Amino acid sequence: MLDQLKEKAISLIEKNIPKNVSWISSHPIAGTEESGPEAGFSELFKDRWCIITPSSQAKKRDIKLLRNFWKKIGSRVDIMDAKQHDYILSITSHIPHLIAYNIVNMTLDINKKKKQEIVKYSAGGLRDFTRIAASNPIMWRDIFIQNRKNASMMIDKFIENLRDLKKAIKNKNEKKLEKIFTKTKKIRKEIVKAGQDIGKANFGRK
Amino acid sequence: MLDQLKEKAISLIEKNIPKNVSWISSHPIAGTEESGPEAGFSELFKDRWCIITPSSQAKKRDIKLLRNFWKKIGSRVDIMDAKQHDYILSITSHIPHLIAYNIVNMTLDINKKKKQEIVKYSAGGLRDFTRIAASNPIMWRDIFIQNRKNASMMIDKFIENLRDLKKAIKNKNEKKLEKIFTKTKKIRKEIVKAGQDIGKANFGRK
Repeated sequence: MLDQLKEKAISLIEKNIPKNVSWISSHPIAGTEESGPEAGFSELFKDRWCIITPSSQAKKRDIKLLRNFWKKIGSRVDIMDAKQHDYILSITSHIPHLIAYNIVNMTLDINKKKKQEIVKYSAGGLRDFTRIAASNPIMWRDIFIQNRKNASMMIDKFIENLRDLKKAIKNKNEKKLEKIFTKTKKIRKEIVKAGQDIGKANFGRK
Repeated sequence: MLDQLKEKAISLIEKNIPKNVSWISSHPIAGTEESGPEAGFSELFKDRWCIITPSSQAKKRDIKLLRNFWKKIGSRVDIMDAKQHDYILSITSHIPHLIAYNIVNMTLDINKKKKQEIVKYSAGGLRDFTRIAASNPIMWRDIFIQNRKNASMMIDKFIENLRDLKKAIKNKNEKKLEKIFTKTKKIRKEIVKAGQDIGKANFGRK
Protein backbone atom coordinates (compact mmCIF):
# COMPACT_ATOMS: atom_id res chain seq x y z
CA MET A 1 0.00 0.00 0.00
CA LEU A 2 3.03 2.27 0.02
CA ASP A 3 3.12 5.29 -2.15
CA GLN A 4 6.68 6.21 -2.90
CA LEU A 5 6.14 9.71 -4.23
CA LYS A 6 7.64 11.71 -1.40
CA GLU A 7 10.03 8.99 -0.34
CA LYS A 8 11.53 8.97 -3.83
CA ALA A 9 11.60 12.74 -4.14
CA ILE A 10 13.32 13.30 -0.81
CA SER A 11 15.94 10.66 -1.49
CA LEU A 12 16.72 12.26 -4.86
CA ILE A 13 16.92 15.74 -3.35
CA GLU A 14 19.16 14.66 -0.48
CA LYS A 15 21.71 13.35 -2.95
CA ASN A 16 21.82 16.57 -4.91
CA ILE A 17 21.67 19.53 -2.55
CA PRO A 18 24.54 21.18 -0.64
CA LYS A 19 25.01 19.90 2.88
CA ASN A 20 24.10 23.20 4.52
CA VAL A 21 20.59 23.31 3.00
CA SER A 22 17.73 22.31 5.35
CA TRP A 23 15.32 20.63 2.97
CA ILE A 24 11.90 20.20 4.58
CA SER A 25 8.77 19.16 2.70
CA SER A 26 5.37 20.45 3.79
CA HIS A 27 2.07 18.92 2.81
CA PRO A 28 -1.05 20.67 4.04
CA ILE A 29 -4.02 18.25 3.95
CA ALA A 30 -6.27 21.01 2.71
CA GLY A 31 -7.62 22.25 -0.57
CA THR A 32 -10.59 22.03 -2.85
CA GLU A 33 -11.31 20.62 -6.29
CA GLU A 34 -10.08 23.93 -7.72
CA SER A 35 -6.47 24.81 -8.44
CA GLY A 36 -4.26 27.86 -8.54
CA PRO A 37 -3.83 30.91 -6.33
CA GLU A 38 -7.34 32.20 -7.16
CA ALA A 39 -8.80 29.12 -5.48
CA GLY A 40 -7.34 30.15 -2.11
CA PHE A 41 -9.33 31.63 0.77
CA SER A 42 -8.41 32.83 4.23
CA GLU A 43 -9.69 29.76 6.11
CA LEU A 44 -8.09 27.25 3.73
CA PHE A 45 -5.56 25.93 6.26
CA LYS A 46 -7.52 26.57 9.44
CA ASP A 47 -7.63 23.43 11.62
CA ARG A 48 -6.33 21.29 8.75
CA TRP A 49 -3.31 19.14 9.43
CA CYS A 50 -0.02 19.86 7.72
CA ILE A 51 2.56 17.09 7.43
CA ILE A 52 6.17 18.20 7.66
CA THR A 53 8.76 15.78 6.35
CA PRO A 54 12.31 16.94 7.04
CA SER A 55 15.22 15.49 5.10
CA SER A 56 17.90 13.88 7.26
CA GLN A 57 20.14 16.92 7.08
CA ALA A 58 17.44 19.46 8.04
CA LYS A 59 18.36 21.56 11.07
CA LYS A 60 16.08 21.48 14.11
CA ARG A 61 15.93 25.24 14.16
CA ASP A 62 14.63 25.33 10.60
CA ILE A 63 12.05 22.62 11.26
CA LYS A 64 10.76 24.69 14.18
CA LEU A 65 10.63 27.80 12.00
CA LEU A 66 8.54 26.05 9.33
CA ARG A 67 6.32 24.49 11.96
CA ASN A 68 5.57 27.91 13.38
CA PHE A 69 4.82 29.26 9.91
CA TRP A 70 2.08 26.67 9.40
CA LYS A 71 0.73 27.15 12.89
CA LYS A 72 0.48 30.87 12.36
CA ILE A 73 -1.78 30.43 9.34
CA GLY A 74 -4.07 28.15 11.34
CA SER A 75 -2.73 24.65 10.62
CA ARG A 76 -2.07 21.86 13.04
CA VAL A 77 1.32 20.28 12.38
CA ASP A 78 2.64 16.72 12.45
CA ILE A 79 6.21 15.72 11.70
CA MET A 80 6.79 12.33 10.10
CA ASP A 81 9.05 10.54 7.66
CA ALA A 82 8.31 10.19 3.95
CA LYS A 83 7.22 6.57 4.21
CA GLN A 84 4.54 7.34 6.78
CA HIS A 85 3.44 10.42 4.83
CA ASP A 86 3.08 8.40 1.66
CA TYR A 87 1.09 5.71 3.41
CA ILE A 88 -1.36 8.19 4.92
CA LEU A 89 -1.88 10.01 1.64
CA SER A 90 -2.48 6.82 -0.26
CA ILE A 91 -5.45 5.87 1.92
CA THR A 92 -6.92 9.28 2.67
CA SER A 93 -6.46 10.87 -0.73
CA HIS A 94 -5.26 8.63 -3.58
CA ILE A 95 -7.78 5.78 -3.17
CA PRO A 96 -10.67 8.24 -2.78
CA HIS A 97 -9.66 10.05 -5.98
CA LEU A 98 -9.24 6.80 -7.93
CA ILE A 99 -12.65 5.57 -6.84
CA ALA A 100 -14.42 8.87 -7.42
CA TYR A 101 -13.01 9.10 -10.95
CA ASN A 102 -14.06 5.53 -11.60
CA ILE A 103 -17.64 5.79 -10.42
CA VAL A 104 -18.34 9.04 -12.25
CA ASN A 105 -16.72 7.74 -15.44
CA MET A 106 -18.63 4.48 -15.15
CA THR A 107 -22.04 6.10 -14.72
CA LEU A 108 -21.33 8.37 -17.67
CA ASP A 109 -20.41 5.34 -19.75
CA ILE A 110 -23.36 3.13 -18.91
CA ASN A 111 -25.72 6.05 -19.36
CA LYS A 112 -24.10 7.59 -22.42
CA LYS A 113 -27.29 8.35 -24.27
CA LYS A 114 -29.04 9.86 -21.27
CA LYS A 115 -26.35 11.93 -19.64
CA GLN A 116 -28.99 14.44 -18.65
CA GLU A 117 -30.57 11.94 -16.28
CA ILE A 118 -27.37 11.60 -14.27
CA VAL A 119 -27.24 15.36 -14.01
CA LYS A 120 -30.90 15.75 -13.02
CA TYR A 121 -31.00 13.02 -10.42
CA SER A 122 -27.46 13.29 -9.06
CA ALA A 123 -28.64 14.48 -5.62
CA GLY A 124 -29.36 10.82 -4.77
CA GLY A 125 -25.69 10.37 -3.91
CA LEU A 126 -23.66 10.59 -7.10
CA ARG A 127 -23.06 14.35 -6.90
CA ASP A 128 -20.80 13.89 -3.87
CA PHE A 129 -18.33 11.93 -6.00
CA THR A 130 -18.34 14.48 -8.80
CA ARG A 131 -16.63 17.04 -6.58
CA ILE A 132 -13.46 14.98 -6.19
CA ALA A 133 -13.74 13.79 -9.80
CA ALA A 134 -13.60 17.47 -10.80
CA SER A 135 -10.03 17.82 -9.52
CA ASN A 136 -7.16 18.82 -11.78
CA PRO A 137 -7.00 16.16 -14.56
CA ILE A 138 -3.32 16.72 -15.38
CA MET A 139 -2.15 16.56 -11.79
CA TRP A 140 -4.04 13.36 -11.06
CA ARG A 141 -3.02 11.77 -14.37
CA ASP A 142 0.59 12.32 -13.32
CA ILE A 143 0.13 11.20 -9.71
CA PHE A 144 -1.39 7.88 -10.79
CA ILE A 145 1.13 7.23 -13.57
CA GLN A 146 4.19 8.10 -11.50
CA ASN A 147 2.77 6.03 -8.73
CA ARG A 148 1.34 3.25 -10.89
CA LYS A 149 2.67 0.35 -8.88
CA ASN A 150 0.93 1.46 -5.74
CA ALA A 151 -2.20 2.62 -7.56
CA SER A 152 -2.52 -0.92 -8.92
CA MET A 153 -2.10 -2.40 -5.47
CA MET A 154 -4.75 -0.06 -4.07
CA ILE A 155 -7.16 -1.01 -6.84
CA ASP A 156 -6.62 -4.71 -6.14
CA LYS A 157 -7.22 -4.16 -2.45
CA PHE A 158 -10.40 -2.22 -3.18
CA ILE A 159 -11.68 -4.96 -5.49
CA GLU A 160 -10.95 -7.58 -2.84
CA ASN A 161 -12.98 -5.62 -0.28
CA LEU A 162 -15.81 -5.01 -2.73
CA ARG A 163 -16.01 -8.74 -3.41
CA ASP A 164 -16.38 -9.36 0.32
CA LEU A 165 -19.23 -6.86 0.43
CA LYS A 166 -20.85 -8.54 -2.57
CA LYS A 167 -20.59 -11.89 -0.83
CA ALA A 168 -22.25 -10.54 2.32
CA ILE A 169 -25.09 -9.10 0.22
CA LYS A 170 -25.54 -12.30 -1.79
CA ASN A 171 -25.58 -14.42 1.37
CA LYS A 172 -28.10 -12.06 2.98
CA ASN A 173 -25.63 -11.62 5.83
CA GLU A 174 -27.67 -8.99 7.67
CA LYS A 175 -25.43 -8.93 10.72
CA LYS A 176 -22.28 -8.32 8.74
CA LEU A 177 -23.80 -5.55 6.63
CA GLU A 178 -25.29 -3.83 9.65
CA LYS A 179 -21.94 -4.03 11.42
CA ILE A 180 -20.08 -2.50 8.48
CA PHE A 181 -22.61 0.29 7.91
CA THR A 182 -22.72 1.14 11.62
CA LYS A 183 -18.93 1.30 11.76
CA THR A 184 -18.76 3.64 8.76
CA LYS A 185 -21.48 5.86 10.25
CA LYS A 186 -19.50 6.14 13.47
CA ILE A 187 -16.30 7.29 11.78
CA ARG A 188 -18.14 10.25 10.23
CA LYS A 189 -19.03 11.47 13.72
CA GLU A 190 -15.40 11.17 14.77
CA ILE A 191 -14.25 13.18 11.75
CA VAL A 192 -16.70 15.95 12.61
CA LYS A 193 -15.68 15.82 16.29
CA ALA A 194 -12.04 16.18 15.25
CA GLY A 195 -12.91 19.35 13.34
CA GLN A 196 -12.09 17.79 9.96
CA ASP A 197 -15.53 18.27 8.42
CA ILE A 198 -18.59 20.41 8.85
CA GLY A 199 -21.05 19.03 11.42
CA LYS A 200 -24.16 19.79 9.39
CA ALA A 201 -26.10 17.23 7.35
CA ASN A 202 -25.38 17.20 3.62
CA PHE A 203 -22.17 19.20 4.17
CA GLY A 204 -24.46 22.11 5.03
CA ARG A 205 -25.76 22.27 1.44
CA LYS A 206 -29.32 23.56 1.10
CA MET B 1 -28.36 -2.97 -14.21
CA LEU B 2 -32.02 -2.95 -13.31
CA ASP B 3 -33.14 -2.50 -9.80
CA GLN B 4 -36.51 -4.11 -9.30
CA LEU B 5 -37.49 -2.54 -6.02
CA LYS B 6 -40.29 -0.27 -7.18
CA GLU B 7 -41.22 -2.48 -10.12
CA LYS B 8 -41.85 -5.37 -7.76
CA ALA B 9 -43.68 -3.26 -5.17
CA ILE B 10 -46.04 -1.68 -7.68
CA SER B 11 -46.89 -5.00 -9.29
CA LEU B 12 -47.70 -6.46 -5.85
CA ILE B 13 -49.82 -3.47 -4.88
CA GLU B 14 -51.76 -3.43 -8.15
CA LYS B 15 -52.86 -7.01 -7.56
CA ASN B 16 -54.17 -6.27 -4.08
CA ILE B 17 -55.88 -2.89 -4.02
CA PRO B 18 -59.48 -2.06 -4.96
CA LYS B 19 -59.92 -0.89 -8.54
CA ASN B 20 -61.03 2.60 -7.56
CA VAL B 21 -57.79 3.41 -5.70
CA SER B 22 -55.31 5.62 -7.60
CA TRP B 23 -51.99 4.26 -6.39
CA ILE B 24 -49.14 6.62 -7.25
CA SER B 25 -45.61 6.33 -5.89
CA SER B 26 -43.50 9.43 -5.32
CA HIS B 27 -39.77 9.46 -4.90
CA PRO B 28 -38.15 12.80 -4.17
CA ILE B 29 -34.44 12.68 -5.06
CA ALA B 30 -33.61 14.70 -1.99
CA GLY B 31 -32.45 14.07 1.53
CA THR B 32 -29.37 13.94 3.66
CA GLU B 33 -27.44 11.28 5.54
CA GLU B 34 -29.82 11.87 8.45
CA SER B 35 -33.23 10.22 8.87
CA GLY B 36 -36.56 10.98 10.44
CA PRO B 37 -38.81 14.05 10.59
CA GLU B 38 -36.26 16.01 12.67
CA ALA B 39 -33.86 15.85 9.74
CA GLY B 40 -36.20 17.88 7.55
CA PHE B 41 -35.72 21.54 6.66
CA SER B 42 -37.73 24.00 4.58
CA GLU B 43 -35.50 23.87 1.48
CA LEU B 44 -35.24 20.07 1.44
CA PHE B 45 -37.23 19.62 -1.78
CA LYS B 46 -36.43 22.93 -3.44
CA ASP B 47 -35.24 22.40 -7.03
CA ARG B 48 -34.80 18.66 -6.40
CA TRP B 49 -36.49 16.29 -8.83
CA CYS B 50 -39.34 14.10 -7.68
CA ILE B 51 -40.15 10.96 -9.65
CA ILE B 52 -43.84 10.07 -9.80
CA THR B 53 -44.65 6.49 -10.78
CA PRO B 54 -48.38 5.94 -11.23
CA SER B 55 -49.83 2.43 -11.17
CA SER B 56 -51.75 1.48 -14.31
CA GLN B 57 -55.11 2.20 -12.68
CA ALA B 58 -54.20 5.66 -11.36
CA LYS B 59 -56.53 8.41 -12.54
CA LYS B 60 -55.10 11.33 -14.51
CA ARG B 61 -56.80 13.78 -12.18
CA ASP B 62 -55.06 12.25 -9.17
CA ILE B 63 -51.67 12.21 -10.88
CA LYS B 64 -52.11 15.91 -11.59
CA LEU B 65 -53.07 16.57 -7.96
CA LEU B 66 -49.98 14.83 -6.65
CA ARG B 67 -47.79 16.54 -9.21
CA ASN B 68 -49.05 19.91 -8.03
CA PHE B 69 -48.43 18.98 -4.41
CA TRP B 70 -44.74 18.36 -5.12
CA LYS B 71 -44.43 21.47 -7.24
CA LYS B 72 -45.90 23.57 -4.47
CA ILE B 73 -43.21 22.49 -2.02
CA GLY B 74 -40.52 23.42 -4.54
CA SER B 75 -39.85 20.16 -6.40
CA ARG B 76 -39.51 19.62 -10.10
CA VAL B 77 -41.54 16.60 -11.22
CA ASP B 78 -40.96 13.81 -13.71
CA ILE B 79 -43.42 11.01 -14.43
CA MET B 80 -42.00 7.63 -15.40
CA ASP B 81 -42.62 3.92 -15.07
CA ALA B 82 -41.14 1.76 -12.32
CA LYS B 83 -38.52 0.20 -14.56
CA GLN B 84 -37.05 3.56 -15.56
CA HIS B 85 -37.24 4.79 -11.95
CA ASP B 86 -35.36 1.75 -10.72
CA TYR B 87 -32.68 2.13 -13.38
CA ILE B 88 -32.07 5.78 -12.54
CA LEU B 89 -31.88 5.12 -8.81
CA SER B 90 -29.48 2.24 -9.24
CA ILE B 91 -26.89 4.44 -10.96
CA THR B 92 -27.39 7.73 -9.13
CA SER B 93 -27.93 6.37 -5.63
CA HIS B 94 -27.34 2.66 -5.08
CA ILE B 95 -23.91 2.36 -6.70
CA PRO B 96 -22.68 5.50 -4.93
CA HIS B 97 -23.82 4.14 -1.55
CA LEU B 98 -22.26 0.72 -2.18
CA ILE B 99 -18.95 2.27 -3.14
CA ALA B 100 -18.90 4.80 -0.33
CA TYR B 101 -19.57 2.08 2.24
CA ASN B 102 -16.84 -0.03 0.73
CA ILE B 103 -14.10 2.59 0.65
CA VAL B 104 -14.74 3.80 4.19
CA ASN B 105 -14.92 0.24 5.51
CA MET B 106 -11.76 -0.69 3.60
CA THR B 107 -9.69 2.23 4.92
CA LEU B 108 -10.85 1.46 8.45
CA ASP B 109 -9.80 -2.15 7.98
CA ILE B 110 -6.36 -1.58 6.52
CA ASN B 111 -5.67 1.07 9.10
CA LYS B 112 -7.22 -0.65 12.10
CA LYS B 113 -4.50 0.19 14.56
CA LYS B 114 -4.29 3.83 13.55
CA LYS B 115 -7.90 4.84 13.10
CA GLN B 116 -7.03 8.29 14.39
CA GLU B 117 -4.92 8.96 11.33
CA ILE B 118 -7.86 8.47 8.99
CA VAL B 119 -9.83 10.90 11.10
CA LYS B 120 -7.07 13.51 11.27
CA TYR B 121 -6.14 13.48 7.60
CA SER B 122 -9.55 12.80 6.08
CA ALA B 123 -9.75 16.23 4.43
CA GLY B 124 -7.54 14.85 1.64
CA GLY B 125 -10.64 13.35 0.02
CA LEU B 126 -11.88 10.53 2.21
CA ARG B 127 -14.23 12.68 4.28
CA ASP B 128 -16.52 13.18 1.27
CA PHE B 129 -17.29 9.46 1.22
CA THR B 130 -17.97 9.31 4.94
CA ARG B 131 -21.10 11.45 4.52
CA ILE B 132 -22.89 8.89 2.37
CA ALA B 133 -21.42 6.06 4.43
CA ALA B 134 -23.13 7.63 7.45
CA SER B 135 -26.59 6.93 6.04
CA ASN B 136 -29.11 4.76 7.84
CA PRO B 137 -27.45 1.32 8.29
CA ILE B 138 -30.72 -0.62 8.57
CA MET B 139 -32.32 0.94 5.52
CA TRP B 140 -29.28 0.33 3.32
CA ARG B 141 -28.78 -3.19 4.66
CA ASP B 142 -32.34 -3.95 3.54
CA ILE B 143 -32.06 -2.18 0.17
CA PHE B 144 -28.97 -4.16 -0.78
CA ILE B 145 -30.29 -7.50 0.46
CA GLN B 146 -33.72 -7.15 -1.14
CA ASN B 147 -32.01 -6.01 -4.26
CA ARG B 148 -29.05 -8.37 -4.09
CA LYS B 149 -29.18 -9.57 -7.68
CA ASN B 150 -28.80 -6.08 -9.04
CA ALA B 151 -26.35 -5.00 -6.36
CA SER B 152 -24.12 -7.89 -7.46
CA MET B 153 -24.39 -6.85 -11.08
CA MET B 154 -23.49 -3.29 -10.22
CA ILE B 155 -20.47 -4.42 -8.24
CA ASP B 156 -19.28 -6.54 -11.17
CA LYS B 157 -19.70 -3.62 -13.54
CA PHE B 158 -17.79 -1.35 -11.18
CA ILE B 159 -14.95 -3.85 -10.88
CA GLU B 160 -14.80 -4.18 -14.67
CA ASN B 161 -14.47 -0.41 -15.03
CA LEU B 162 -11.90 -0.19 -12.26
CA ARG B 163 -9.80 -2.81 -14.01
CA ASP B 164 -9.87 -0.70 -17.18
CA LEU B 165 -8.66 2.28 -15.19
CA LYS B 166 -5.92 0.16 -13.63
CA LYS B 167 -4.83 -0.96 -17.10
CA ALA B 168 -4.64 2.62 -18.35
CA ILE B 169 -2.52 3.58 -15.34
CA LYS B 170 -0.22 0.57 -15.70
CA ASN B 171 0.26 1.24 -19.43
CA LYS B 172 0.98 4.91 -18.71
CA ASN B 173 -1.87 5.75 -21.07
CA GLU B 174 -1.73 9.51 -20.47
CA LYS B 175 -4.24 10.36 -23.17
CA LYS B 176 -6.88 7.99 -21.84
CA LEU B 177 -6.51 9.13 -18.24
CA GLU B 178 -6.62 12.79 -19.19
CA LYS B 179 -9.72 12.16 -21.29
CA ILE B 180 -11.52 10.38 -18.43
CA PHE B 181 -10.57 12.95 -15.80
CA THR B 182 -11.58 15.83 -18.09
CA LYS B 183 -14.93 14.21 -18.80
CA THR B 184 -15.65 13.72 -15.09
CA LYS B 185 -14.66 17.31 -14.35
CA LYS B 186 -17.10 18.55 -16.99
CA ILE B 187 -20.07 16.67 -15.56
CA ARG B 188 -19.64 18.42 -12.21
CA LYS B 189 -20.10 21.76 -13.96
CA GLU B 190 -23.28 20.49 -15.60
CA ILE B 191 -24.67 19.31 -12.26
CA VAL B 192 -24.05 22.72 -10.75
CA LYS B 193 -25.54 24.44 -13.82
CA ALA B 194 -28.66 22.27 -13.49
CA GLY B 195 -29.08 23.47 -9.89
CA GLN B 196 -28.41 20.01 -8.45
CA ASP B 197 -25.41 20.99 -6.34
CA ILE B 198 -23.89 24.06 -4.77
CA GLY B 199 -21.59 25.99 -7.13
CA LYS B 200 -18.92 26.70 -4.54
CA ALA B 201 -15.65 24.77 -4.21
CA ASN B 202 -15.56 22.10 -1.51
CA PHE B 203 -19.38 22.15 -1.30
CA GLY B 204 -18.99 25.57 0.28
CA ARG B 205 -17.29 24.07 3.36
CA LYS B 206 -14.80 26.33 5.08
